[in-house]
Amino acid sequence: MSAQTQPIIKLGVPKGSLEEATINLFERAGWKIRKHTRNYFPDINDPEITASLCRVQEIGGYIEAGVLDVGITGLDWLSERGHEDKVERIADLVYSKTSNRPCRWVLAVAGDSPYACAADLAGKRIATELEGLTRRYFSRQGVDVDVFYSWGATEAKVVEGLADGIVEVTETGTTIRAHGLKIIDEVMVSYPVLIANRDAWRDPRKRAKIEQLTLLLQGALRAENLVAIKMNAPAAHLDAILEMLPSLNSPTVSPLRDGRWLSVETVVEVGIVRDLIPRLREAGAEGIIEYALNKVI
Amino acid sequence: MSAQTQPIIKLGVPKGSLEEATINLFERAGWKIRKHTRNYFPDINDPEITASLCRVQEIGGYIEAGVLDVGITGLDWLSERGHEDKVERIADLVYSKTSNRPCRWVLAVAGDSPYACAADLAGKRIATELEGLTRRYFSRQGVDVDVFYSWGATEAKVVEGLADGIVEVTETGTTIRAHGLKIIDEVMVSYPVLIANRDAWRDPRKRAKIEQLTLLLQGALRAENLVAIKMNAPAAHLDAILEMLPSLNSPTVSPLRDGRWLSVETVVEVGIVRDLIPRLREAGAEGIIEYALNKVI
Amino acid sequence: MSAQTQPIIKLGVPKGSLEEATINLFERAGWKIRKHTRNYFPDINDPEITASLCRVQEIGGYIEAGVLDVGITGLDWLSERGHEDKVERIADLVYSKTSNRPCRWVLAVAGDSPYACAADLAGKRIATELEGLTRRYFSRQGVDVDVFYSWGATEAKVVEGLADGIVEVTETGTTIRAHGLKIIDEVMVSYPVLIANRDAWRDPRKRAKIEQLTLLLQGALRAENLVAIKMNAPAAHLDAILEMLPSLNSPTVSPLRDGRWLSVETVVEVGIVRDLIPRLREAGAEGIIEYALNKVI
Amino acid sequence: MSAQTQPIIKLGVPKGSLEEATINLFERAGWKIRKHTRNYFPDINDPEITASLCRVQEIGGYIEAGVLDVGITGLDWLSERGHEDKVERIADLVYSKTSNRPCRWVLAVAGDSPYACAADLAGKRIATELEGLTRRYFSRQGVDVDVFYSWGATEAKVVEGLADGIVEVTETGTTIRAHGLKIIDEVMVSYPVLIANRDAWRDPRKRAKIEQLTLLLQGALRAENLVAIKMNAPAAHLDAILEMLPSLNSPTVSPLRDGRWLSVETVVEVGIVRDLIPRLREAGAEGIIEYALNKVI
Amino acid sequence: MSAQTQPIIKLGVPKGSLEEATINLFERAGWKIRKHTRNYFPDINDPEITASLCRVQEIGGYIEAGVLDVGITGLDWLSERGHEDKVERIADLVYSKTSNRPCRWVLAVAGDSPYACAADLAGKRIATELEGLTRRYFSRQGVDVDVFYSWGATEAKVVEGLADGIVEVTETGTTIRAHGLKIIDEVMVSYPVLIANRDAWRDPRKRAKIEQLTLLLQGALRAENLVAIKMNAPAAHLDAILEMLPSLNSPTVSPLRDGRWLSVETVVEVGIVRDLIPRLREAGAEGIIEYALNKVI
Amino acid sequence: MSAQTQPIIKLGVPKGSLEEATINLFERAGWKIRKHTRNYFPDINDPEITASLCRVQEIGGYIEAGVLDVGITGLDWLSERGHEDKVERIADLVYSKTSNRPCRWVLAVAGDSPYACAADLAGKRIATELEGLTRRYFSRQGVDVDVFYSWGATEAKVVEGLADGIVEVTETGTTIRAHGLKIIDEVMVSYPVLIANRDAWRDPRKRAKIEQLTLLLQGALRAENLVAIKMNAPAAHLDAILEMLPSLNSPTVSPLRDGRWLSVETVVEVGIVRDLIPRLREAGAEGIIEYALNKVI
Repeated sequence: MSAQTQPIIKLGVPKGSLEEATINLFERAGWKIRKHTRNYFPDINDPEITASLCRVQEIGGYIEAGVLDVGITGLDWLSERGHEDKVERIADLVYSKTSNRPCRWVLAVAGDSPYACAADLAGKRIATELEGLTRRYFSRQGVDVDVFYSWGATEAKVVEGLADGIVEVTETGTTIRAHGLKIIDEVMVSYPVLIANRDAWRDPRKRAKIEQLTLLLQGALRAENLVAIKMNAPAAHLDAILEMLPSLNSPTVSPLRDGRWLSVETVVEVGIVRDLIPRLREAGAEGIIEYALNKVI
Repeated sequence: MSAQTQPIIKLGVPKGSLEEATINLFERAGWKIRKHTRNYFPDINDPEITASLCRVQEIGGYIEAGVLDVGITGLDWLSERGHEDKVERIADLVYSKTSNRPCRWVLAVAGDSPYACAADLAGKRIATELEGLTRRYFSRQGVDVDVFYSWGATEAKVVEGLADGIVEVTETGTTIRAHGLKIIDEVMVSYPVLIANRDAWRDPRKRAKIEQLTLLLQGALRAENLVAIKMNAPAAHLDAILEMLPSLNSPTVSPLRDGRWLSVETVVEVGIVRDLIPRLREAGAEGIIEYALNKVI
Repeated sequence: MSAQTQPIIKLGVPKGSLEEATINLFERAGWKIRKHTRNYFPDINDPEITASLCRVQEIGGYIEAGVLDVGITGLDWLSERGHEDKVERIADLVYSKTSNRPCRWVLAVAGDSPYACAADLAGKRIATELEGLTRRYFSRQGVDVDVFYSWGATEAKVVEGLADGIVEVTETGTTIRAHGLKIIDEVMVSYPVLIANRDAWRDPRKRAKIEQLTLLLQGALRAENLVAIKMNAPAAHLDAILEMLPSLNSPTVSPLRDGRWLSVETVVEVGIVRDLIPRLREAGAEGIIEYALNKVI
Repeated sequence: MSAQTQPIIKLGVPKGSLEEATINLFERAGWKIRKHTRNYFPDINDPEITASLCRVQEIGGYIEAGVLDVGITGLDWLSERGHEDKVERIADLVYSKTSNRPCRWVLAVAGDSPYACAADLAGKRIATELEGLTRRYFSRQGVDVDVFYSWGATEAKVVEGLADGIVEVTETGTTIRAHGLKIIDEVMVSYPVLIANRDAWRDPRKRAKIEQLTLLLQGALRAENLVAIKMNAPAAHLDAILEMLPSLNSPTVSPLRDGRWLSVETVVEVGIVRDLIPRLREAGAEGIIEYALNKVI
Repeated sequence: MSAQTQPIIKLGVPKGSLEEATINLFERAGWKIRKHTRNYFPDINDPEITASLCRVQEIGGYIEAGVLDVGITGLDWLSERGHEDKVERIADLVYSKTSNRPCRWVLAVAGDSPYACAADLAGKRIATELEGLTRRYFSRQGVDVDVFYSWGATEAKVVEGLADGIVEVTETGTTIRAHGLKIIDEVMVSYPVLIANRDAWRDPRKRAKIEQLTLLLQGALRAENLVAIKMNAPAAHLDAILEMLPSLNSPTVSPLRDGRWLSVETVVEVGIVRDLIPRLREAGAEGIIEYALNKVI
Repeated sequence: MSAQTQPIIKLGVPKGSLEEATINLFERAGWKIRKHTRNYFPDINDPEITASLCRVQEIGGYIEAGVLDVGITGLDWLSERGHEDKVERIADLVYSKTSNRPCRWVLAVAGDSPYACAADLAGKRIATELEGLTRRYFSRQGVDVDVFYSWGATEAKVVEGLADGIVEVTETGTTIRAHGLKIIDEVMVSYPVLIANRDAWRDPRKRAKIEQLTLLLQGALRAENLVAIKMNAPAAHLDAILEMLPSLNSPTVSPLRDGRWLSVETVVEVGIVRDLIPRLREAGAEGIIEYALNKVI
């Protein structure tokens, strides 16, 4: 049919702690999302998409119901609210407000308490924001506890004697330890996931657009942990130098006008550069420069 | 029995939007509550009380379970969480972050929508923070709707097309209208209430302490809407002047050294002073001064 | 006629540097003005008044045109915009953001410049926000200058060499001196004035309301510089003590149960208390207390 | 001539909403401007330039008068203050606080008003910051209106009933719509322009410096909307890949040591990358990376 | 001699944590001190005083040297810097940033360390801001330690293993405990003191001014912990009611027109009001009001 | 020996004005330091390092005592506290909060004072944070002065008449001049230095780690002042173009598929780009792009 126009994709962007990191990720991927103080529809510079800012807790429900077509939410809330099996999970996007590590929901108790495992908490009060996850966790182990819903500041519940244990989210454990608590078990690992409504995923034109989003978001996310390094390598030592470079990305080697040297350029993980550079220099590489990347596809 | 010491009362202080107003109210009532950035136990300058800062959503549950003895929470959440009939409701304390008016939970829809009453929303999506209240409201009217839990910014749900209606809290309706919504029904009136655990209320020594709290909190709250005015009244016009003063508080009339004048002092509502003063002056009162009060018992 | 209702008064409240001080003054006078972040109509707790927040520069024009009935603006802008002779000037209200002193528009030049009076600036560049006032000032003295309109940061214009002199507003001269400038003449004294539209002032019902506003705003403003002091005076030294008290307010003297003492209470200017109290004590007064006042009529 | 030294260029930098964006643009162009809290002369790391921070409203006047040699101001205020024909307009620099789009001055009225074009506003009140532009616009159409100068918050003038229409600046229309207004005409398109004093422009040494500024500011501004992409292309598909690349910048193709592949690098508009990358990958390109640019000349 | 004018008193006002509380105290005492952002001489509304803002650490030295005449500093730094015996100590003014309690310098160690007294720290590292006090404290006990000067965040020194113990200031111990430390000894009690240069104190005219300052600062400080309460007492129960009132301030009892009642007014400590009011009510008092005081002399 | 594990290096990171710049420098060098609000141990993503945040004044002492192994501090405080000769000075790292220039400690006096050199200040009061440096400076010149320790806001000491001169730190002299002071001598030049404990430096495994830190911190610091530029050069003009490029970095010249052109890429100082680019363009270079670098080794 001739008059068929591209359908508009309704995108859910997580509001709150992931908000800024998500907007930055979209920007590096190629989409500018601009918020307004006076309404809640952010602008997005793509006529084929409209964006809504919603809490991670809400996005799964709106996608399941088809109010939104695609969005980013946390695996934890997706599961807690029961949407996990009713939406299409497209890609895992491991990033967070402050790092690119997944977060963990853990069971924690007062540092000077005698509790060492879930069973020790039988009959006790547990405060948490994820009641469902917590109930299923204790029930899998056959331990009976009273679960209290906690509206934030969950660590303090133990400090103040309002609860005996908590199930709470953490990246590094620092906040939990800073409250004098100790972690006695890991309940769940979570990270952002890109999910789609099942009908939208079946519609080929919507699906093509969602796949474009996925490819570029993944490319931008990958680039965050990578940098480009470039150096002049003496022809005589080229093989030694190439051997040092991690094999996952094959380096680009190009001739120079001065035939005794070659230009070598490659993409490496940011975390290994500090060990790699001293070794490259020892092997004869010169003029080593490092620069940042927006995307790596 | 000799060794009986006064039991410690565990007090729940609402954290969040009521927090500052509550701490100020306690200060005027005679108790200084001082928060610390690094832990959650606020100091309170009364050895017979320990205070905990909790969300209004949590206080009812902790009081029902006896984790706390007494506290201030909102009537709305007390009812929503099902604690209303399981705690002792001691006093209504009508105050808020910005005024001393109760707040209202209302049903609102887009200003340009055709919906004019609850029944018009049959089969539609309603976003709210009070799912129970909302479900009971619609079910009382025999109207079937889909209720979505909303994590804040509820008005925006309608603006963005995520919901057809909302049940949301408001004092003056300003925020709701500023989003282009219109209110089509009032679902509930709410305000802070002082509640106690039933066992604590039955314990005579705990009850005496709770009653002292109640008397002084009420005295401090009352003083907020009252001011003292004091004037010199000519003896000849004393009766006319006394007649103008509101009858609820009997004025204090004392003789002056100059027998032609009397001193008249009374407590009046702050809202009527601007009309009262011009009339008192016309009636011959002189040297009218107004001053603020901490407490009126 | 029976159905005559009280007309609504449209009140202009100055936005910007006078805003907070004005809202506080109205509160002490008996009217609560509450701003909203999302629209510009502030609430005012009087059904006979609607309030608008406007810049002082705009209020005169809206009152002259009858768009507003009454408002507070600065004498300087009232004159600059040419409304002075076309509105009714009801009362001078000398207050400001930080003190209760009038402000002055002054002619200032670089501290190390040779200019000592207006005539020395012939042919030079003068930067100012009040072009009309500045032109009239120089023309009265027969001095020809180039006047440049300045959008704020006027003192810096001299520091940067963009202007040779400025006509700028100041309370204490501190900011001007802090830029290394010196004041060489005073051009105008200014303070807030309460003005009304001429038709509104002729309408008896509007005028009665405007007069009520005036009485109570003046009473609240007066109270800012006054405090009440109260003491027990020995009957034997009463006359000596009464003589020390400033004559403008006649003190209230009342008998005590113990006939050797009298209670003396009076209202005095806050600025003289620190000198008065030591002298009262020397004269035998005891139990001297000082308290703050909301209004003095 | 022997003693001829390079003259110092006096540069006007716009203060306020364009300030940060302008300082960033200069930094990418190669000049660091550093502000000080205690005076108004910013440092600039070029001994041939002194910089002054002035409001856009003032810069045109200072450049016309020769107080400054060159500067950036808005086309709107340049025209409003009547300097347009008295300074040299060197280059259009389309950037803003938040995007790189020009802004528009529009005629807007209440969303629910009957006004649909300028003529409908005959006899009405129009609030605006650009009185001259507004008067000329209505007079061109033979419509008589009352123009009120507005000191900011112009949209609110309609909401509060102080004006019937406004002429106001906007980028996306969002703020205007958020106040419930509708746009009924476009009055002027505006953006930053680089202007110079006519005498400075005629002086060859000053002109050379101004041209250097222009070249590098334009290069930095261009780079904001461009990114570099680099990939390894199979020799067999090189032509297909080159054909996909936009023609405006001819790509750099260099041989690799492995003769079956070539390195292709080009500069493309940031807005097309998200569509280009999936197509390049389909065509066989590998190791696609994208990186940001400071300047493109 | 005729031409003798009152000498100007140079006053040192402590900058930093005591600054706001000190400026408020002076305001209640009768002196307005106004700071400026652009210079360091605060205004004070008394032509006989000039004020300087200095750190508490510096004030003692400037007063000893006669650079300042009078000022407020902390007893701790007065002693640490060795000025204690070289200035005149006029009055103790027990107030602080957050309360009116003195502060304490304490010896603290890690909560889980074995150290229980000073002697246990022999040979260890002690971090502190008061090196002199700390050295004298350990030397009095014959314990040899290494004292490290700490530039703030002293508690963290133990947490990070940089020190074994600290000597640090605290009001309630909360911050120390929040770092997981325990207090094992009290080293010094400190509070603000009003001190004067010895020559200034000997000059009768300067001394008179300093004594006026002292009287009114003490009056204002006393008023902070006191409130006035006022009630109507039945003549029949007057004695019972008077007996309940604390004896330190003799209450003012005045007759009312209605001879069966008397007016009773007194000043009481804010901390006892919450216990006093319920008892007064039981004894028949009516119309009990409480109001705040600026000064009690 | 088999069980030898790599020892943990204890690193001191300067807290306060250098803190953010230091953390950014480490990030570009390859180490992420993440602070926590609730304790003072920042995370560092290298299992061979633990980091502590300390004031620059403290770091030297902790490194001398072996509490820390390596750290960054200021040369000024290193010398003032007497650690200069007792630690190993590894590298000078010239950076600061706002620029990459060293700072200077200067002798300054009131702008209108008669003092022109150190000798003119004999017998006067000098305020400073570096008492030792100041005493040694004056004593080298045989000038006797009273040195007062200053806790910040040192410039104000002269303005307020508390001191006759100051020895204070400055980068550009702007703050000093803004207080109306003039600089009459330079006392010391300072910048951050990387220092190590002597025992740590002698331990080969610790030293290897410290050398890796040094290499990468220097590489990252160097990159801040450098950018990469890349262009297509006509083969015919290659030599002319290469001659324009600064000799310190030999440019990378690579052949293009189109044999008439070569690709030239080099690293140049950011400060010369604005002069270089116009000349390159004149010489025939095309497609000039500039991009930023993370590291240059």
